[in-house]
Amino acid sequence: MARSAVIKIGGHVLFDGVELNVGYVRELKDALVEAAGAYDWLAVVVGGGELARRYVEWGRELGLNDSALDMIGIRVAATNAALLWAYFHGVAPPSIPSSLQEAVAMLPAWRVVFLGGLQPAQSTTTVAALLAEAVRAEKLVIATDVDGVYSDDPRRNPAATRFEEVAASELEKMFSGGLVAGGYRLLDPLTLAVLRRSGIEAYVVAGRPPRNIVRALRGERIGTRILPK
Amino acid sequence: MARSAVIKIGGHVLFDGVELNVGYVRELKDALVEAAGAYDWLAVVVGGGELARRYVEWGRELGLNDSALDMIGIRVAATNAALLWAYFHGVAPPSIPSSLQEAVAMLPAWRVVFLGGLQPAQSTTTVAALLAEAVRAEKLVIATDVDGVYSDDPRRNPAATRFEEVAASELEKMFSGGLVAGGYRLLDPLTLAVLRRSGIEAYVVAGRPPRNIVRALRGERIGTRILPK
Amino acid sequence: MARSAVIKIGGHVLFDGVELNVGYVRELKDALVEAAGAYDWLAVVVGGGELARRYVEWGRELGLNDSALDMIGIRVAATNAALLWAYFHGVAPPSIPSSLQEAVAMLPAWRVVFLGGLQPAQSTTTVAALLAEAVRAEKLVIATDVDGVYSDDPRRNPAATRFEEVAASELEKMFSGGLVAGGYRLLDPLTLAVLRRSGIEAYVVAGRPPRNIVRALRGERIGTRILPK
Amino acid sequence: MARSAVIKIGGHVLFDGVELNVGYVRELKDALVEAAGAYDWLAVVVGGGELARRYVEWGRELGLNDSALDMIGIRVAATNAALLWAYFHGVAPPSIPSSLQEAVAMLPAWRVVFLGGLQPAQSTTTVAALLAEAVRAEKLVIATDVDGVYSDDPRRNPAATRFEEVAASELEKMFSGGLVAGGYRLLDPLTLAVLRRSGIEAYVVAGRPPRNIVRALRGERIGTRILPK
Amino acid sequence: MARSAVIKIGGHVLFDGVELNVGYVRELKDALVEAAGAYDWLAVVVGGGELARRYVEWGRELGLNDSALDMIGIRVAATNAALLWAYFHGVAPPSIPSSLQEAVAMLPAWRVVFLGGLQPAQSTTTVAALLAEAVRAEKLVIATDVDGVYSDDPRRNPAATRFEEVAASELEKMFSGGLVAGGYRLLDPLTLAVLRRSGIEAYVVAGRPPRNIVRALRGERIGTRILPK
Amino acid sequence: MARSAVIKIGGHVLFDGVELNVGYVRELKDALVEAAGAYDWLAVVVGGGELARRYVEWGRELGLNDSALDMIGIRVAATNAALLWAYFHGVAPPSIPSSLQEAVAMLPAWRVVFLGGLQPAQSTTTVAALLAEAVRAEKLVIATDVDGVYSDDPRRNPAATRFEEVAASELEKMFSGGLVAGGYRLLDPLTLAVLRRSGIEAYVVAGRPPRNIVRALRGERIGTRILPK
Repeated sequence: MARSAVIKIGGHVLFDGVELNVGYVRELKDALVEAAGAYDWLAVVVGGGELARRYVEWGRELGLNDSALDMIGIRVAATNAALLWAYFHGVAPPSIPSSLQEAVAMLPAWRVVFLGGLQPAQSTTTVAALLAEAVRAEKLVIATDVDGVYSDDPRRNPAATRFEEVAASELEKMFSGGLVAGGYRLLDPLTLAVLRRSGIEAYVVAGRPPRNIVRALRGERIGTRILPK
Repeated sequence: MARSAVIKIGGHVLFDGVELNVGYVRELKDALVEAAGAYDWLAVVVGGGELARRYVEWGRELGLNDSALDMIGIRVAATNAALLWAYFHGVAPPSIPSSLQEAVAMLPAWRVVFLGGLQPAQSTTTVAALLAEAVRAEKLVIATDVDGVYSDDPRRNPAATRFEEVAASELEKMFSGGLVAGGYRLLDPLTLAVLRRSGIEAYVVAGRPPRNIVRALRGERIGTRILPK
Repeated sequence: MARSAVIKIGGHVLFDGVELNVGYVRELKDALVEAAGAYDWLAVVVGGGELARRYVEWGRELGLNDSALDMIGIRVAATNAALLWAYFHGVAPPSIPSSLQEAVAMLPAWRVVFLGGLQPAQSTTTVAALLAEAVRAEKLVIATDVDGVYSDDPRRNPAATRFEEVAASELEKMFSGGLVAGGYRLLDPLTLAVLRRSGIEAYVVAGRPPRNIVRALRGERIGTRILPK
Repeated sequence: MARSAVIKIGGHVLFDGVELNVGYVRELKDALVEAAGAYDWLAVVVGGGELARRYVEWGRELGLNDSALDMIGIRVAATNAALLWAYFHGVAPPSIPSSLQEAVAMLPAWRVVFLGGLQPAQSTTTVAALLAEAVRAEKLVIATDVDGVYSDDPRRNPAATRFEEVAASELEKMFSGGLVAGGYRLLDPLTLAVLRRSGIEAYVVAGRPPRNIVRALRGERIGTRILPK
Repeated sequence: MARSAVIKIGGHVLFDGVELNVGYVRELKDALVEAAGAYDWLAVVVGGGELARRYVEWGRELGLNDSALDMIGIRVAATNAALLWAYFHGVAPPSIPSSLQEAVAMLPAWRVVFLGGLQPAQSTTTVAALLAEAVRAEKLVIATDVDGVYSDDPRRNPAATRFEEVAASELEKMFSGGLVAGGYRLLDPLTLAVLRRSGIEAYVVAGRPPRNIVRALRGERIGTRILPK
Repeated sequence: MARSAVIKIGGHVLFDGVELNVGYVRELKDALVEAAGAYDWLAVVVGGGELARRYVEWGRELGLNDSALDMIGIRVAATNAALLWAYFHGVAPPSIPSSLQEAVAMLPAWRVVFLGGLQPAQSTTTVAALLAEAVRAEKLVIATDVDGVYSDDPRRNPAATRFEEVAASELEKMFSGGLVAGGYRLLDPLTLAVLRRSGIEAYVVAGRPPRNIVRALRGERIGTRILPK
């Protein structure tokens, strides 16, 4: 059985507003090359970021419903994945996987694959968890714009504390709630349920610097470790 | 814009244990022909039923994880969809859609399409809601083995009452909870969130007799009407 | 044989800088609905615009070569096509065609299809001409940010005059030259060669207001008419 | 249920040696247009002819085995199908179906589809019978280079008589035997078994002139009628 | 050129009636792991078994024709293949190949692939022979519910003797005959013709215990060896 | 990053008129095996040759336009590619890539892929240049029926001299001009523009003997070396 890991990189980690952070992407590649050295397969799921949010906004003004808006946001995320694919593998990118089955199918030959979202009403974090489950990944690293999971919103509540380790079941209680296109939360209920049911250990780390991803894969104490229970 | 409706038919409605209820399927076709007459497009999502549950059990004994188990259950549901496709259209069935995009792509030419599930950790009811949203369906009818949504489990609590009408937001509070392969509930949180965000009116009706589906599509008082709020 | 027309809409017509012109898109839909009424099939090829240019810039900083850059620009154009597809047909968009064959395959069922680019080193105007040729379109309308073809760059040379009518062979002499990713000209040599060899009449019109497209399809005197000789 | 018919046209009917008989193809189109008027769906399966035989010969000299040779012959037949598709529909042809499922999938939108072979060790006549069965075609017409089925080889035995009508079961006894790439017989055992099991009435007629096909579809006395028993 | 072998495993070998024999599948995996060690590529074709037979029965009651019934049986066989794929590779299974070309395309990356049937009126044994031919497999092992080929039905005639070795041409004479959906025989004429024309050596062995497969691949005296002449 | 090279082999190199030169193909395989030893990936683009030209002629008589004619010529080239695939890899060929993305997608698993053309109005030489660019090939070798690029047509002008080395920009001036289906020139403007923009070094060599290809890949002085400037 192939040893594998899955990494989710938030769109807002790759971009500063509507500008790609090119320097960041360079360092990210180095981190991914290092990470790929420790696994047979590595899957990287990227978000759409601010550009996706803009498209969603325009579509909403035109009266598109959430399904169509999500599909368009997914296309922006896949464009980001294509850019990373081209940069990592040094080729004009092939078709970006548009289903879990396609992602699995491409792993044995490419070893490192990049994808965006898959379906409306589904966050790219859920995609990452589903793919981690599909390939029995040893770890899922969620690289985002905060450095872990906090007891409360750290931007509003200075007393909020970061969990070093927390059970998925605990988080389920904290993060339940609504669902609006493009506005998913850090860890939605479905992601947590998937982690729990398949025993996948996840880390939430600050995506910058990208070495945090490597450190989490190595099991270092960084960000928040989410126990699948 | 094409006028459309989506119907979810639970696997346990089509089957009695591991036996297809052939007489039921005959009546169902008549109902679907009638329903199809009132819409440009009709999408029918079918569940896997007891046979899917059996495959899941065997796979679990072999140590497959939930992702693989769900994928196998999805294949059984798609086999049921293929059987209905063949019976409804009188042809050897083409590929059954394996993504929302494929389902949408087939509707203009076929007008009536049948599919099973799409992804692990997703009920066929969620698939039906997502597809209803994707095509801006006027109605979603969920044909299942109870005749509506009850205030409590009617098999255990004789005082349980059936809702004639209930808001999705009310149901969200009632039906939150865990997620186990093959054991999804009548209406999971994601389904309800999708209905709410896109304003889709849904009906939960007893799948037997199949005319209940036609009656719900016509707006008759039957089963439980779920308001998208 | 199906009667058809092809319309190319430049990305810079849809967008003001990096902002979609939502009001324009609304009017464009009305124009396309009207245009669709006169043909069996209508194909709309859209450009990537300023957002594609941005992605190309970021990719270039990362050292991607022109092939990869073009593929990423094509993805942005396809995202624009998906947005228009969703708005025009009122559905979550199916897969956007990624080859001429796929575009042709979708026309009989959808009647109106939207696509972006197809290959590196190929402008979306060339795509439009190739598709016009593939379906023997009666007309190709190129809706762009100038109101026709001029004898010289009208922004620099106030004495430049607009052609009411010009032969493709004349234009070939005027517009030959280099090829840089994302920086194709109004009418490249390949487009002109395709128009000539298949006898397709083309119009270059100002994309704003979108009724210009309808007027060109009707054969009114507008923009520049390019004769296939 | 869509009313349909399937027509098999032998490669040797379309070609004179290695030269396409262009005049014949023109008349064939007229016949197919007329035939298409009487059905919802019409599927036309074409053979590879002498050019396929040549490729098979070259491949055999290179030591390819029969599977590879058949696949290459199938490609030639599909090229012939593409040419007819282009001529009939007036478009650059989309992908030619490479499975029964794809052929069925394209019929509702295109109404008239053209294909070549599908699998090694399978004649295009078998493909036609399988497709006739898949769509419950009312009739299968096999247009070939003889004017029906004879009691013996009419080129060698002048006493051979043509059957006006013959049961498939009778033919099964006559036509059993070996299997060599590219050298299938008029009616192989599998074709006959398919006709029998699904009750499809077939006609073997001389492919020239092509009006014979129309006459057979109309039930006129022409060629040999094969009863599915 | 890749060294390869193909294994056909009858549905009735995997299942006891409608119950998967989980213990058997565990041992089968060990045997396949061992077999895979000796080849570059290994393809495993599985049958549908009793569950496929049930679906066929239900479909027949509904009036589906043999083509549709076979397609549904193929789906059950592919579900069995998906279960084995998941168990062997430890992943949620990608798309199961639905054509010879797809099976060949997946072999270089996956090395061991699992599939069910491909077309109506074709046994999974024929599929295995066609795939063996397509990849120039050194051996085809047919694991079934008898321990070889007998001179007569051993369940009825106690004097029936098992062949240690028999020519395909001899078997052709013994096994000709009719064709009914779901009721194919051990070795149909097409399978034998394919083996002969491409010189593939085949073994018919008892599928239980699964080590018989390994023994046949090693050339041990087991079951019946079918010589391609 | 994978090291790669791309080879274009003209149809007229493989064929003598309408006859495949079998002896040549044998030697070509040896050369390709040797070439493949020096790279991770090798892509071979083949032309259609005289058979493609014949199909184009027949289609033209039927009134097909250039788009359809080119698509049919592409199919003949892909048939040639399938024959080489079967011969090189010793398998029945999988689907021949019909887009750059598909060609890129198949390289990691197959290492050596064969394809024909991709789009109307595009030479197979352009396809080879685009694919070389897509995979950042170190070299592109164009094996054709002349032994390099001459200052004038050597068949008409005995004073014509062969360039040992020439800049793409110089050739652009020499080779501009018209575009007719099936009649592309040795090096069209688009090919040259692609070579220049991506810095790909190309060689034009006589395709016979095939060792010329190996020699060009090794950097020996042979044919004409085209500098990407």
